[in-house]
Parts: sequence; C-alpha cells; structure tokens
Amino acid sequence: MTAAPKLEPERPPSGANFLAEVREQPAALRRLLEHRDEFTAAARACAARDPAAVRLVGHGSSDAAASYGVYAFGLLPGWTALRDSISLTVYYGANVDFSRSVVVALSQSGRTPDVVSYVERARERGALTVAVTNERESELARAAEVMLPLAAGAEHSVAATKTFLNQLAALALLAGAAAGREEEVVDGIGRVAELLEGAIPELEQAVAPLATTFAYVGRMYVIGRGIEFGTAREIALKLTETCRVAAEPLTATDLSHGPIAALDAMFPVWTIASRDESLPALVEAAAKVRAAGATIVASGNAADAIEGAAWRLPVPAAPMAVLSPLVSVVPGQLFAGALAGAKGLDPDRPEGLTKVTLAQ
Amino acid sequence: MTAAPKLEPERPPSGANFLAEVREQPAALRRLLEHRDEFTAAARACAARDPAAVRLVGHGSSDAAASYGVYAFGLLPGWTALRDSISLTVYYGANVDFSRSVVVALSQSGRTPDVVSYVERARERGALTVAVTNERESELARAAEVMLPLAAGAEHSVAATKTFLNQLAALALLAGAAAGREEEVVDGIGRVAELLEGAIPELEQAVAPLATTFAYVGRMYVIGRGIEFGTAREIALKLTETCRVAAEPLTATDLSHGPIAALDAMFPVWTIASRDESLPALVEAAAKVRAAGATIVASGNAADAIEGAAWRLPVPAAPMAVLSPLVSVVPGQLFAGALAGAKGLDPDRPEGLTKVTLAQ
Repeated sequence: MTAAPKLEPERPPSGANFLAEVREQPAALRRLLEHRDEFTAAARACAARDPAAVRLVGHGSSDAAASYGVYAFGLLPGWTALRDSISLTVYYGANVDFSRSVVVALSQSGRTPDVVSYVERARERGALTVAVTNERESELARAAEVMLPLAAGAEHSVAATKTFLNQLAALALLAGAAAGREEEVVDGIGRVAELLEGAIPELEQAVAPLATTFAYVGRMYVIGRGIEFGTAREIALKLTETCRVAAEPLTATDLSHGPIAALDAMFPVWTIASRDESLPALVEAAAKVRAAGATIVASGNAADAIEGAAWRLPVPAAPMAVLSPLVSVVPGQLFAGALAGAKGLDPDRPEGLTKVTLAQ
Repeated sequence: MTAAPKLEPERPPSGANFLAEVREQPAALRRLLEHRDEFTAAARACAARDPAAVRLVGHGSSDAAASYGVYAFGLLPGWTALRDSISLTVYYGANVDFSRSVVVALSQSGRTPDVVSYVERARERGALTVAVTNERESELARAAEVMLPLAAGAEHSVAATKTFLNQLAALALLAGAAAGREEEVVDGIGRVAELLEGAIPELEQAVAPLATTFAYVGRMYVIGRGIEFGTAREIALKLTETCRVAAEPLTATDLSHGPIAALDAMFPVWTIASRDESLPALVEAAAKVRAAGATIVASGNAADAIEGAAWRLPVPAAPMAVLSPLVSVVPGQLFAGALAGAKGLDPDRPEGLTKVTLAQ
C-alpha cells in the first residue's frame, strides 16, 4: 500500500479570513438572534438567583467582552458585574462565597483550561454557571449548568472579530432579557446589523490611507470610557496581535493619571467617542492629548466632538446607547487588518499565537 | 508699602524627593502601624455588614493598589472585592444595589472629584463607606462614614511611592483584621519594614547599570500574576509617568493571548516572580518571552526561578505571601527613578502631570 500524495490546501491570501470575518459580522449577529429564546430562559434563571454578583471570566478578546458586560449588566438590570479573578479561585483556592453569584464564562472554543476549571469550582460552590461559546460540545459547555450559543460560526483567523461582536451581543441580550427589555435589545441588535452592512464598505475605504501613514508606528494608546472601555481593550488587542504595535487601552481618566506624560508626536492616540454621559471626559482627555502634540484618530458616533483630530472615522449611532460598542469596534478591526497589511504582516496568522490558547 | 522681594525656594536636585520618599518607606509603614486600632474598628464595622461586595475605587496608583485589594480581601477574609466602575454610578447613574456593599475609596489627597462623588452616592444608597487617605480634613474623609489614615506623611514627588506602599499595607491590615488575623499582619508589615531597610541600599546599586542599558527603551511590558498584578500596574505606571516609556502591565495569561506577538529584541519585559501558587504560570510566560527574543528582567522573591533573565533583581521573601507586593514593588520604583535620571527626566516633576489630578 502506498501513501496517497498529500495535497496541501491552497493558502488563502494574507488577511483574507480576517477581512471576510469582519464583513460577515452582520450575518453573525442575525444568527445569534435566532437563539433569543435560549437567552430569555437563561435570563430568567439568572434573575431567580437575585444575584449579588455576576462574575465574568474569559481571556484575551473574551476578557475585553467581559469589560463590556460590566456595563451591560450595570445599565440594563442594575446588577453588579465584575471581571472575576480566575487566579483567586483556581490557583490560590480562596474561600469565596459563590451562593448568590451568577458566572458568565466566555470562550470562543470552550476549551480554555483555567476558564473551565473556574466554572467547575464555582458550580461546586453554588454559583449558577452560564457558558457562552461557539462550541456546544465543548468542555466549557459541559461544565456549565446553562449553555448559550455564540452562533458566530467557525472563525478561521487567529485574531477574533465576529466572535467578539457576538459576545457583546450575547451579553446585551442576556442583560436586556434580565431587565425585561428583551424586545428592545433584539430590535436594536437587528438594527445594528443593518447599520454595519452599510458602514463596513465605507470604513474599509476610510482606513486605507490611515494604515499607510501609520505603517511605522510602534506604540499607540486607545482611549475609551465607560461602556467603550471594553472596545478600547479589544482594538488595542487587535493592534498588538496583528500589527505588533504596543497598543495600550486606557480610560480617559487613566490617561490623566500618568500616561499623558509619555505622549509625543510619534505616539498616536485612537479615541472612541460615543454620545453618552461619558463623552465630556473623553473630549477633555483628547484636548490633553492634542496639547501633548500627539496625533489623534477620532472614531465613534461622536467622532465630530473631538477637536483637532488628524483623522476621523465616524460610525452611525446605535439605536440604544448600550449597543454603541457593537458599532464602535468595527473601524478598529478594519484598521488593524489594513495596518497589518501595510506592515507586511498576516492578521490571520500572527506570529507566536494560536487560535486556542491552552496556556493557563 | 513696597512688596518684599520674593525668594524663590531652592529647587532640589532632579529626583531628590522621589528617591527620598522611596527610602522613607520603612518609616512610613511603621507610622501606619501606629493606627492599628482604627483599622481594627473599621474591620469590625465592615464585617458587621456581611458584605456581598467590597467596592474599591481610586485612580492612578490608587487604582493599582485596588488591584491588590481584590486579592487581600479574597485571600484573607474570603470577601469578593472588585475595582468598581466609577462611571456606572457617577456618570451613567446606574441603579445598582449598594445595601450589602462596603466601599473602600483610595486617594492620597482625598480630593479626587469623582471618587468623592462616588462615595457620596454609594453612602446615600446604603453602602458602608471607608476612605483611606493621607488627609484627615479632606473632602473624601468628610464624605465617607469611616476614615482610615494612610499616615504616609507629605509626599512631594508627583510620582507616588510611599503612599502606594502604605495603601497596600492599609488594605492588608483592614483585610487581615476582618479575617481575625490582625496580629499576624501587623507583625508581617513590621518585618517588611525591616527587610526593606536592608534591601533598599543594595537595590539602589543594582538598578544603576540597568538604567544605563535601558536609556533608549521606548516600550516595555511588566508581567505580574494574581497578587502581583497590582504591583505590575504600579511599576508600569511609574515607568510611564517618570520615564515616558510605553510600559503596559499584563498578567501572565494576558501575554499569551496577543501581546506575545508584539515582542522582539527591542522590547524588554519586566517580570515579577513571587513564590506562590501563581509562579508556574509566570515561569511559563517568561519562557515564551525568551523564545520571542525579548530581554527579561527578573525581579521578586522568586527571581531565580526565571530562566534566561538578562538581569536579576531579587528581593527578600515577605513573612506572609499576601505581603509580597510590599517588597516586590520597590525594585521597580528604584529602577524608574534611575531610568528617569538616565533619560535626563525629573521623576519629581513629570511633564504634564500634577500631584492632585482634578480631571474626572
């Protein structure tokens, strides 16, 4: 018996998966909405706990989504949510009370080892555990009491895009249903999908010259506040992993307490300005950035409120302020893809990274 | 009447306050211990609430100390502590339940406006509010139900050092007293003061050649895990504000989920290795850093466990693992001061920063 010749699958062009997955996001959001009944049932189970704490866990993009979850649960049902420390429970074995806790564990693959361990321990100690994952048959889905599908479909690029967006939508849907505002959130996410369909082609054009200009940039700050801090974390992560830029996410307040001192003309700052109660602080922070001589990129639905920006990437306003991050993240994703191209890097396969990180 | 000639006070040499305040830290810790009875009483009041959440708030170094507080409360009394979002309560007006909450507000000056606003609202809504500040007569001290002195003494350098260390000690003392382990924590802090007295002169010598070598570094990562993540945040902040380095704090896990891709030989990584349950993850992360070709500085009481470090800055082991950060932060402070000197910058007066940040 001779071995059949091995056919190497043709390698897609650099960044092809990444870009295709950014473009697929409106469809991914609509797939999630087909599961609304599962979210309603899960929200009912969470509410029955009268939770003292919603504990969000996840790594990488999932942790950025968790930052959004703090605001979605705070603003919609008024629940205290936190990005919980996995170390405390899994490694240090701290004796923390989980009895009035809901755990929401975020993992695209459902295979992140210490997230699975955390869920197992939290469940043993009495928490209601909810897994949000793309993989119904994963370890995480089995470990948790309730499984919510991410419904983003297979993601081929190592750098996550559509799974992040669907994580935000999933958190908004769960929080909205817990607040009795499910209908409004479902309609809102549907409207976001439409808005993105219109905006993505224009944004693809808009980021191209910016990527050329920034081809040699080595460090950036990404500033977002309140509900947009998770967006800032995700955009900074995309720039770091796909473009090898040392991009750090900061709140407007963080910036004034130290990092402003590091800025200069070689240090661009990406600002996410959304029209809500946090906008004045963002505008004030941007003025300090400008005074320090740094180049400003203004994005978000209130990009026009940032004075002196060298570049503007405005996005349409979401129908509910709490859904703004689902739109605000997209220019950052597209810019990261374009900048990687300008730097000769492949966003589908960043060096040193794998799709499923098995490290603790 | 003629105006008397104005005498300009003599300007101290660059970084003189910063260095003096780092050296003063053992004395500052001892001053804090004189107030142990106030901490015991406060811990009793906190425990009486049977808190579902300890909400820590502060900006800059105080927020880095809050990261430590999450572990101090989790490990000692087993309470769930979180760095709470000030935005949610103060700006978005979220309708969150504070009835079983303890608030611990951290501010050197007691004048940070949105921390004061947060405390006022949390108190109205039924939280037990505790202020930890250097200023007994400050707005924050008046706004909170319980005031705990930081007892660090006047701090003249804009970049905080001794107030940060005393914030850690104050959190450990409050958490320890809540756990009925006050005696052990008081003795431990006293022992830390002794250890630092011995270690500081040696560390001052050890950081000098490192500062010369790193004079042109523009970006760094500072890696700490679990209880040392707050230390990583504080060291990164010192480097950013005093040395204009884009220094980002990461957990060992964060590193693997993206930032590892950005590393190269021009991108040094400072690791904080302490001998506790989180050490294996730190050792594994350092191996990835080395494989990416980046220079490693190994500090902490387990600095010897990090293979292939170009530089080692070991520190003595604290008498309790939960007190390790009080020792681990010191090499970072001294390095930041020395690096600022090597870069021709003044750590006492970083450009664009003021001692009390009145921005929201």
